[in-house]
Amino acid sequence: MLPEEVTKYLAEHRQEHLEQLFEVLRFPSVSSQSAHEADGLACAEHIAGHLQGLGFSAELRPWRKHPIILARSTPEIADPSAPTVLIYAHYDVQPPDPVDLWTSPPFEPTIRDGAIYARGASDDKGLLMSCINGCEAFIRTVGQLPMNVLFFSEGEEEIGSPELEDFITAAADDLKSDFALVMDLGFFAPGMPTILTGLRGLVYLELTLNGPSVDLHSGQHGGAVVNPLNALAKMIAAMHDEDDRVTLPGFYDDVVEPSDEELQAWKSLPFNKSEYAKEVGVEPAGGERRRSILERRWSRPTLDCNGIIGGYQGEGAKTVLPASATAKISMRLVPNQRPEKALAAFDEFVSSNTPPGVRASVKVLSRSRPFLIRPDSPAIGAVKDAMYEAFDADTVLARAGGSVPISELIQRILKVDPVVTGFALSDDNIHSPNERLKLEQFHTGAVATAAMLNNLARLK
Amino acid sequence: MLPEEVTKYLAEHRQEHLEQLFEVLRFPSVSSQSAHEADGLACAEHIAGHLQGLGFSAELRPWRKHPIILARSTPEIADPSAPTVLIYAHYDVQPPDPVDLWTSPPFEPTIRDGAIYARGASDDKGLLMSCINGCEAFIRTVGQLPMNVLFFSEGEEEIGSPELEDFITAAADDLKSDFALVMDLGFFAPGMPTILTGLRGLVYLELTLNGPSVDLHSGQHGGAVVNPLNALAKMIAAMHDEDDRVTLPGFYDDVVEPSDEELQAWKSLPFNKSEYAKEVGVEPAGGERRRSILERRWSRPTLDCNGIIGGYQGEGAKTVLPASATAKISMRLVPNQRPEKALAAFDEFVSSNTPPGVRASVKVLSRSRPFLIRPDSPAIGAVKDAMYEAFDADTVLARAGGSVPISELIQRILKVDPVVTGFALSDDNIHSPNERLKLEQFHTGAVATAAMLNNLARLK
Repeated sequence: MLPEEVTKYLAEHRQEHLEQLFEVLRFPSVSSQSAHEADGLACAEHIAGHLQGLGFSAELRPWRKHPIILARSTPEIADPSAPTVLIYAHYDVQPPDPVDLWTSPPFEPTIRDGAIYARGASDDKGLLMSCINGCEAFIRTVGQLPMNVLFFSEGEEEIGSPELEDFITAAADDLKSDFALVMDLGFFAPGMPTILTGLRGLVYLELTLNGPSVDLHSGQHGGAVVNPLNALAKMIAAMHDEDDRVTLPGFYDDVVEPSDEELQAWKSLPFNKSEYAKEVGVEPAGGERRRSILERRWSRPTLDCNGIIGGYQGEGAKTVLPASATAKISMRLVPNQRPEKALAAFDEFVSSNTPPGVRASVKVLSRSRPFLIRPDSPAIGAVKDAMYEAFDADTVLARAGGSVPISELIQRILKVDPVVTGFALSDDNIHSPNERLKLEQFHTGAVATAAMLNNLARLK
Repeated sequence: MLPEEVTKYLAEHRQEHLEQLFEVLRFPSVSSQSAHEADGLACAEHIAGHLQGLGFSAELRPWRKHPIILARSTPEIADPSAPTVLIYAHYDVQPPDPVDLWTSPPFEPTIRDGAIYARGASDDKGLLMSCINGCEAFIRTVGQLPMNVLFFSEGEEEIGSPELEDFITAAADDLKSDFALVMDLGFFAPGMPTILTGLRGLVYLELTLNGPSVDLHSGQHGGAVVNPLNALAKMIAAMHDEDDRVTLPGFYDDVVEPSDEELQAWKSLPFNKSEYAKEVGVEPAGGERRRSILERRWSRPTLDCNGIIGGYQGEGAKTVLPASATAKISMRLVPNQRPEKALAAFDEFVSSNTPPGVRASVKVLSRSRPFLIRPDSPAIGAVKDAMYEAFDADTVLARAGGSVPISELIQRILKVDPVVTGFALSDDNIHSPNERLKLEQFHTGAVATAAMLNNLARLK
C-alpha cells in the first residue's frame, strides 16, 4: 500500500499539477511539421527543467529533429542499489487539423465538463505529467523514490518514432532497466484499467505518381494525358479486394491468429457494436468480412489512405490535370508481420500496377514492428495491483490497434517486457479535434504511478 | 484592307497598350475563391472605366458574385445604323496554385523572352485588351468604328459560367447582334490562326463521402470503420473501365462522331505525337483506346478527378481516418451529350456504388453544353481574311477540348453562330504556372481584331 502522505500530497496539489500540465500543453510540439521544430525543442527543455527541479539528472540527447529526454533519479532521490524502472511517454503531438472543428484552440488548454481539452492532453503529455507527479509525491513526502526511475521521453512518436531502433541500440547500456512502463493509450472502458499485451506495427509511406511536367488544363488535355489523380485512385482501389482484404502479394503470409484463450477474453470485454457505432458516429462496416470488430482492430493488418495531395483542394472549381498526385498510405501490421516484407510487397504491387503515362515512386516515412508479450509476468501483476489501489477496479488485458514503436524496441533490444498502459479513455478524441483528458484520470493516474513504483520495487 | 493609319497607330502605341494590359493583369480576379470577390469587382470597374474613356457606354450588370460588363459603342464612335458585333472575353482567371512553381509572381506581370508572364495573360485578359486596342485604333484615327461593337465580359468563366444561361435569356434583347466573336483560346500552332468549330461542354461537381463523425485514429479504428478516402478511391476507380472508357450508365449514348471530312481535316493539321509528348512532358497514354489524340481531346467525352480533399495533406505523417473525403470531378461533354443527362448518370452511378459505412452526396458546381457550328459561314470567312491580313497566314478550322460556355449560349439563345477564336499559343501554360502571352500575339491580335471589324462590317 502507498504511504498515506503520498496520496494526501497528490490530493492537495491538484491545482498546481494542473497548471504545470497546462504549461506543457501550450507548446505546439507537432513533430510532423518542420515549422514546429523549435516548439518541440522548447517543450523538451521545459520538461527536462521540471525533472531537474525534482532531483533528476535530466539531459536532452539530440536525435534527428527532436531531442530525446533522458532523466534519471539521482542518489539524492533514490537508492542507487534499488532496481530501476524505465518510464516512457512522448512529448510530441499530432497536428491539430482540422483546427476549425475544435471548440477551444488546440494549444490553449481549457477545462470543460471535468476534462482538460487540448492537443496532447491524453496523447501523451497528460500521462507523462501524471507519472512525474507520482514521483514528485514520493520525493516531497517520503524524501525518496521507492526505486530508481529513468524517464525516457521522445519527440517523434507521432511520426512513427523513425530510427528510434538505432538510438535504443546505441544507448542500450544507458537504458538498462529491470522494468519498463510504456505510458501511452489508456482504459478499455471508463473504470476499467487496461494493460495492452499487443500493439500493431506501422509502415507509413507516400506513393507519388508523376505525369505531365506541369499542371495541365483538363479541357485541353483531358482524354489524352493520363490524369495522375485518376491513376492513383485506381491503384489505391486495387489495394483491397471485394472482401476488403489487402491485395499486396503475400501480405497475410506471416499473420498469426490470436490464441483461443485471448479471443475468448476479448469476448468478455464490455464491447458493444452499437455503442461503438455511436462513439465513431457511423456503422463500423470496414475491414475484413467474418471477423469481429475487436479482431479487425487488434489482430488484423490494414492498409489505409490517410490523405491525397494533387490537383486543386480549394473552394470551387479548377479544371486541372495535376502534374503529380501523392497518397499518404499507412499499413498497420500484426504479429508476425515485418515492415520490410510489407514494404517489399508494396513495391512489388506498385511495379506491377503502375499504368503507362505516369511514373511511380515510394517514400517511406516510418516503420515499426508489431508488439506482443506474455500476459502473466510479475510486473504485470504489480501494475494491476497498483491500478486497483488507485482506481479501485480490476485491470483487463487487451490489445490496441495503434502503434507505440518503443514497446517492441524495449522488448527486443533491452530484453525487458514493458507494461504498456495509460490513463486515457477511449472517447478522448486522440488524433481528432477536441482531444481531452478527464481531470479524474489525470489526478488518479499520478496515484496509480506512485503505486506502481511502490509495487515494482518489491519484486526484486 | 485596314486603313493604314489604324495599323500605324497600333504600332506606335505598343508600350502604352502593354502598360494598360499590365494594370488589368495585376487584379487577382480569381473567380473560384470568395476571398477575391472584391478583386473581381475592382477589375471589372477598371475595364469598364477604360471602355468609357474610349466612348463606350459601359455598365456593370450585377450577377451572382461577379458583375458582367456590357459596353456598347455610342453614336459618337459608331453609326447606329451599322451592324453590331458582340465581342466576348472574360476578365476572371484561374487560381494561380501551385504558386511556388511560378518564376515570377502570378499577379506581377513580367516580360521575359518576348512574352508577358502573368495569370490571365493569355486566358483571357490579354485577348480582351487586344480587342479593345483594335477598337481604340479606329476611334483615335478614323474617328469611328466600322460597325457597332458590344463588349460582353463576364467574371465567372473559370468556374464554368454558372447560370449564365439565365442572364443571356433575360438580356437577350440587349444582346441582339449580327455577329459574335468569342475571344478565348487561340492558335493551333505558332503562325497558324485558328477558328474553333467545336468545344466540349463541362459538368463540374463535388462528390463527398461522409463516414465517422470526426477524424479518427487509423490505428485505433482502422479495419473497423470504413475509410472514406479508401472508399472514394474505389468509387473514382470504378468510373473508368479497363479501356479507359467512362462507366457511368448510358454515358456514350448521345455522342456523335465527327464527320469523315472533319476527321480528315484534323489529320492534315501539323500535329505530331512526339512533339505533343514533349509539350506536356509525358507520353499521352490516357483516354480511350483506338482513338487518335486529337479525337480524344476534341470529340470524346472524359471524366477527370481534379482534386481530393480529406485526411492529411501536410508534410510528414498523420495517421488519420478522415471523417469525410471529397473529390472534385469534371466531365467534358461532346455533341450531343447534355449536362443534365450526364449528371443523372453520375447520380445513378453513385447510388449503386456507395459502399455501406459511408453516405454520399453530390454538389454540382457548374454545367455547360458542348458547342458545334457549321464551318462555312460568311462571318468565318471575314475573320479568316482578317487573320490573314494581320498574321500573314491562313486560318485552320479545328476544335478544342476546353469549354467556353458562352459560345453555345450565343448560338442557342441569341441565334448567332459565334466565331470562336483567339491569339494564345498552345504552349502558353493556360491554367498552369507561368501562364504567358507572346508580345507579338498580343499586339498583332489588336491588328487582327481591327481587321475583323472592318471585314464583318461589309457583310451586311
